[in-house]
Amino acid sequence: MNLTKLLKPNTVAVIGASEKEGFGGDTCRNIIEYTKDLKNTYFVNPKKDSVFNYPCYKSMSEIPVDIDMIVICTPQKTVESLLIEASKKGCGGAVVFASGYSETGTEEGKKAEKSLKELCEKLDIALMGPNCAGFVNYISDVYPFAFISKKRDRKGNVGLISQSGQLCLSLMESQDMKFSYAISAGNSKVITMEDYIDFLVEDKDTKVISIYLEGIKEPKKFIKSLRKAAIKSKPIVVLKAGKSEKGKKNAASHTGSLAGSDKTFDAIFKKFGVIRVDDMEELLATSNMFSIIDRLPEKPTFASMNLSGGETGICADTGATYGVEFPDFTEDTLSKLREQLPSYASPNNPLDMTATLSYDADLYAGALRTVMNDKNIGAVIIGYTLLFEIADPAIYYMAEGIKRVIEEGNSKPILMLPFLENTRNYEYAEKLRNLGVPILPPSIYAFKILKYLADFIQYKYEDKILEIALPDENDFSSTKALSEFESKMLLKQNGIPVGEVCVVKNEIEALEAAKKIGYPLVMKIESADILHKSDVGGVRLNLNSENEVISAYHEILVNANIHKPDAKINGILMQKMMPKGLEVIIGVNNDVQFGPMILVGLGGVFVEIFKDVSLYPAPLNKKEAYKMISELKAYKMLKGYRGEKPCDVEALTDMMVKISIFANENKNKLSEIDINPLIVYPEGMGVGVADALIVLKE
Amino acid sequence: MNLTKLLKPNTVAVIGASEKEGFGGDTCRNIIEYTKDLKNTYFVNPKKDSVFNYPCYKSMSEIPVDIDMIVICTPQKTVESLLIEASKKGCGGAVVFASGYSETGTEEGKKAEKSLKELCEKLDIALMGPNCAGFVNYISDVYPFAFISKKRDRKGNVGLISQSGQLCLSLMESQDMKFSYAISAGNSKVITMEDYIDFLVEDKDTKVISIYLEGIKEPKKFIKSLRKAAIKSKPIVVLKAGKSEKGKKNAASHTGSLAGSDKTFDAIFKKFGVIRVDDMEELLATSNMFSIIDRLPEKPTFASMNLSGGETGICADTGATYGVEFPDFTEDTLSKLREQLPSYASPNNPLDMTATLSYDADLYAGALRTVMNDKNIGAVIIGYTLLFEIADPAIYYMAEGIKRVIEEGNSKPILMLPFLENTRNYEYAEKLRNLGVPILPPSIYAFKILKYLADFIQYKYEDKILEIALPDENDFSSTKALSEFESKMLLKQNGIPVGEVCVVKNEIEALEAAKKIGYPLVMKIESADILHKSDVGGVRLNLNSENEVISAYHEILVNANIHKPDAKINGILMQKMMPKGLEVIIGVNNDVQFGPMILVGLGGVFVEIFKDVSLYPAPLNKKEAYKMISELKAYKMLKGYRGEKPCDVEALTDMMVKISIFANENKNKLSEIDINPLIVYPEGMGVGVADALIVLKE
Repeated sequence: MNLTKLLKPNTVAVIGASEKEGFGGDTCRNIIEYTKDLKNTYFVNPKKDSVFNYPCYKSMSEIPVDIDMIVICTPQKTVESLLIEASKKGCGGAVVFASGYSETGTEEGKKAEKSLKELCEKLDIALMGPNCAGFVNYISDVYPFAFISKKRDRKGNVGLISQSGQLCLSLMESQDMKFSYAISAGNSKVITMEDYIDFLVEDKDTKVISIYLEGIKEPKKFIKSLRKAAIKSKPIVVLKAGKSEKGKKNAASHTGSLAGSDKTFDAIFKKFGVIRVDDMEELLATSNMFSIIDRLPEKPTFASMNLSGGETGICADTGATYGVEFPDFTEDTLSKLREQLPSYASPNNPLDMTATLSYDADLYAGALRTVMNDKNIGAVIIGYTLLFEIADPAIYYMAEGIKRVIEEGNSKPILMLPFLENTRNYEYAEKLRNLGVPILPPSIYAFKILKYLADFIQYKYEDKILEIALPDENDFSSTKALSEFESKMLLKQNGIPVGEVCVVKNEIEALEAAKKIGYPLVMKIESADILHKSDVGGVRLNLNSENEVISAYHEILVNANIHKPDAKINGILMQKMMPKGLEVIIGVNNDVQFGPMILVGLGGVFVEIFKDVSLYPAPLNKKEAYKMISELKAYKMLKGYRGEKPCDVEALTDMMVKISIFANENKNKLSEIDINPLIVYPEGMGVGVADALIVLKE
Repeated sequence: MNLTKLLKPNTVAVIGASEKEGFGGDTCRNIIEYTKDLKNTYFVNPKKDSVFNYPCYKSMSEIPVDIDMIVICTPQKTVESLLIEASKKGCGGAVVFASGYSETGTEEGKKAEKSLKELCEKLDIALMGPNCAGFVNYISDVYPFAFISKKRDRKGNVGLISQSGQLCLSLMESQDMKFSYAISAGNSKVITMEDYIDFLVEDKDTKVISIYLEGIKEPKKFIKSLRKAAIKSKPIVVLKAGKSEKGKKNAASHTGSLAGSDKTFDAIFKKFGVIRVDDMEELLATSNMFSIIDRLPEKPTFASMNLSGGETGICADTGATYGVEFPDFTEDTLSKLREQLPSYASPNNPLDMTATLSYDADLYAGALRTVMNDKNIGAVIIGYTLLFEIADPAIYYMAEGIKRVIEEGNSKPILMLPFLENTRNYEYAEKLRNLGVPILPPSIYAFKILKYLADFIQYKYEDKILEIALPDENDFSSTKALSEFESKMLLKQNGIPVGEVCVVKNEIEALEAAKKIGYPLVMKIESADILHKSDVGGVRLNLNSENEVISAYHEILVNANIHKPDAKINGILMQKMMPKGLEVIIGVNNDVQFGPMILVGLGGVFVEIFKDVSLYPAPLNKKEAYKMISELKAYKMLKGYRGEKPCDVEALTDMMVKISIFANENKNKLSEIDINPLIVYPEGMGVGVADALIVLKE
């Protein structure tokens, strides 16, 4: 559905216009107070001739022009007939504040919403809500927003979409945020979150997209928008609810969002370079940072310039905690700084330039220029607590010094980092903003945000397969497991090496197979009904003779019979005993929203106790596979730990890519793959699939 | 040295009083502006008759009364003679702003500081500084502070000590902090950080101690103060610099602080219940929280009450991330809430109470009362973004509701948690403060701080040995390693079981030993010169026969001879081959400041790659040992992982306690112990020392 008439209407009618408190009155008050030109806004109320001294129409039909968009401030029962009436006036967009729909959790509410959605589709009306707070288009001055907010002059380039009205309002009220659009999407059941995201990705007035998200409904559309944003390098900053169990439960009851796996969102965001933040303050400050800086740093490295030793130490420590890199200055920079700084200063990065320089704009600009010109540095962080009321004149000189350096051109991004909050002098904050210098929140937030920035500029969409293996449908309620032999054969058919393996049904076949495969051997019970083979005594390792093979054959069958008398036994699986190596798990799980997700981690306790795993959507290429394993803590073990040889990472990533291709090709029938363990040998010696399990949709 | 005359002087002389900018003028301006009663303050300047219309004396000798404390605003060269003069007037305290001492890094500066220190000791003058910004005693209205700050009315109960003047000033300028004392300690070479801490621990006007610390000089005094604070349950909140390598380097160059191991401070803080925070914002907000709440929660559990689903979700997710516990409400609470909340609300903890209740003080108080009375709850967090300019009237009703509940008495602590910063309406912040309700910083900070609170109330000094094994002197520059046999014998003599072990010097002895010990056996090269025995082929495991013993004996000697021809060989060590079990490391390292520190962790990659270790000062008791291991991520493995039996944690903690006693008794000669591995067997089956290394001071 096209959102132009909804979000960029030429003519707007406010239905239920009023002067009283409530949706009608508050919306009129907002529109009248904030809209510069009211000539294309029409107030409608059958009982009134004027609203706040503006003329009021009895009905839409009286309005002398076509209406692009209507704002429905009246109760639920009036909504559908108003939409039908509006449609006749050429209406293509509507904002519906009324509640009483699916958010009630009742059958009646759900039915009303379904009916509303169908009507809108029939009439081709892009409907925001129901149960929403409306939106503001700051660019073309449209203000159908139902909550009263005090601050003004908020036109900027952040496009905000929020599934919570309260959070939308909080951001609109904040000191620093400047918007292209602010959209409180409500139930977002007609026009969805995905539609708004796509609109803002395409919108040329929006530089940064800022989202509070509880869940998505149309993965395909969502992914398409993320892909476009990635290619445009347009930052999408997301606060996604539902990280914790309690949070997930809450999101489900708040907007009825699908409780998909939250970790899957992290994986999707990694592929598409979306920045996931951890709370509202980060959402605001990260969006703001991207909004304000004129250019992105060319390198993910920072210089930190401070006026005191204590602050310098905090930058060093907090930076290290959050992975922000302060490279050493070059010799050239150091020698220049030795000239520019007082003799008792000792130049380093982070830099304690001492307070002296902050009282002289020339000297300050000089040191800033020196640091900025260092070839190791991507951006400069100025550590300074800008107070609410200026007590110390330093900021006058510093701001002037910064201005001079920026006006010389070719400067790198400069960001200000305060050590305490609740301190920003508005005049200077605005002055710095106009210079392209954002003020970050205090240090823990600040360094997290700088890390987001560093990650963002290191993201290269060219290195990724910008698609995911979305299944055509997602009903995996009924599945069946394959046996190990069946699983391995299916992998083999798909070009994934699984080693020589066969199933024998009697002693003679077992001995023949032994001769063919060679000792030492492994024998296992072969049955789709026995997934935990060791638990039933169904595995014999390291067999070295015909006698051992014969007795293993019988023991395994007897054990299986005792522990799983009802299992259908296909025979005994035989394969070569693999030499020791590093044990890795490769898993695939077909996510209910986003299709097959690849998991990799070192086996056993590393996965189960240390939760040291990487998750990433299929399909993936070698670079993506390599990035997945390099993000493991256990990566050091793969690189050759304590004198061990480095592992065959090449073969491991090859295997991951092959599995991902297989998963992609089988996205509609595959439920799960578990290769556990995959044994990884030293460099050049490959990998071996020791055990494999595939579960298919039935 | 007694600090009374310095920090609580009855009479003060300001030397170098002036009206110009600079130490003299700024100090006079501060004193005149902020001190209510100036009758005991005397200004001294040989060139002036008055300062800002107050009389000025030509010299100290003219002052008609004795002087408790002098504030020296004049340059370095005048300081010593002024101290001598002041001493004759009964002076016992001095503040010295002048720099030019050890912070310059020059020999001259260090010499000047040494001389100053000696003079002060001779004259018994407690000197703050040099190179400091002074202090404020807000309780008895003393204001010898050299930096201009604008905000006033800061009398409260937080005692602040900072090794950075800039950071001290930032905290003094902040909106919310209210102090008993604010001390900018400067070089703190005469009166040390430890002295100030001790003063504030004893000070009845100080409820919370807030410290920016770069290092300490007198561990004994430091520990004594921490012990007192622990017993009094007086919170000490510390921002300690030097977590990172760059931060450590910076601290060393800033105040010349000793670069001891930063992790040791964490360990010390754990023993004494000190709260270590990560940046200035946390220092401020954590101190403030303790300052404002009227009582501590009785349980480390929280209820979260919010006005919207989005905010509720953020509390759930962020709380889970930072380990803040939201227990389920009781059935009774839930059924009451179902009555009190709108029908569409679904009561849970965290609670989305919906915005409706926030417009009715009675209803709000009702729901708050219900939540507060829940027996599972220790404290209540009200999630609300208090704006700078109030746009929404909700806060009126909420504050009134909170007031009513608090005034009923017996309430639990209430804390307000905003979702965005830069928002606090001063009037309401103050109103809430007076009700004992602190406003925390936004959610990431807030939940970290709530976790500090939860940890603090769970700290029980009665469960700890409140002392540490401080060596009499700390010169460990020259050490020697014992061989494995010597190490084990030393442990054995000290009551630490090491299993049967002997050293043989020929084949016959080897065979006799084998008979005595029994198979399977281990043989190792026995030499203090060969610490990495496996690396030289000096270890043979799992020997099962006389033949194997004989050949192992020769092989080991030959290998040692090849790889370490110069090593002094004591013979071959023989011991029983130990059955497999969980391999643990117990280490001891004698810290240069704080004496022997005990380290525990699971062996190999867990220690080296996952850095999963606990560090804690000796001596320790069983409870402390148990806490150490329960803080390991690998603790799950000790508790019995994947069907394995639980390990003998009892025997492991016993061993840790014994090692700690041994370390304590030998604190003056012990440099290092490395028991690696200690094999831990299933419950009731004990532990076994497989290898041990002791390094002694030479």
